[in-house]
Amino acid sequence: MPGVDDLEALRAVNQRYYEAFEASDLDAMSEVWERSERALCTHPGWSMLRGWGHIAASFMALFQSPGTLQFVLTELQPVVQGDVGWVSLDENLLGDDSGITVAVINLFTRRRDGWQMVAHHGSVVQATVGQMG
Amino acid sequence: MPGVDDLEALRAVNQRYYEAFEASDLDAMSEVWERSERALCTHPGWSMLRGWGHIAASFMALFQSPGTLQFVLTELQPVVQGDVGWVSLDENLLGDDSGITVAVINLFTRRRDGWQMVAHHGSVVQATVGQMG
Repeated sequence: MPGVDDLEALRAVNQRYYEAFEASDLDAMSEVWERSERALCTHPGWSMLRGWGHIAASFMALFQSPGTLQFVLTELQPVVQGDVGWVSLDENLLGDDSGITVAVINLFTRRRDGWQMVAHHGSVVQATVGQMG
Repeated sequence: MPGVDDLEALRAVNQRYYEAFEASDLDAMSEVWERSERALCTHPGWSMLRGWGHIAASFMALFQSPGTLQFVLTELQPVVQGDVGWVSLDENLLGDDSGITVAVINLFTRRRDGWQMVAHHGSVVQATVGQMG
């Protein structure tokens, strides 16, 4: 069973992802991620980006766009199994996208020097539910 | 490093998820999933469902709706790390939702009797990209 420290470390790196996003800090974002070919990132409505190169480019573009985002995270639930952990949560967006809720799963792997994000997948929660897949 | 057998077993259970979906077979779907409180499922546009009870109810509802879905899976990439595995892919939907592509990450954990799905997250790929999160 994972210990409290495991879950806290996972929460902490997950938090660093959002701090890097809010600060538009590509260096900090880069430290959060596993900079590998297998890294995966699906921004809401985007096609899946595969590999750190494409993911870094997406954050560079997002960070250059006007306006800032603030995330209020709710329903946050960390899980650790062996050297893999995942955090599910809702991103409640403030700012220009105010009122939007994004359902998210963030996936991490444990390295010698701590947890690194290997996948992020977010999708906007629609007010009316109907699509499937 | 995971062996070829690990990756094949992961591909196989991932395939069983889509076969169960296409067949509207709740029993088969139930066998694919880890029937636990930590199980997570985000259908495209839906809020995140937490716990097998809510997930099972969602599939029951989806399976009772008219029309059938066919999935053509592309960009499928399985990864195994320890007793956790994930499969990223695009679901290309045929049928009533023809033309829709859903970016997906499916997360599995290994049990004594094989892999079980612990999370599914799908989001429709929009033709125009712009949202972030």
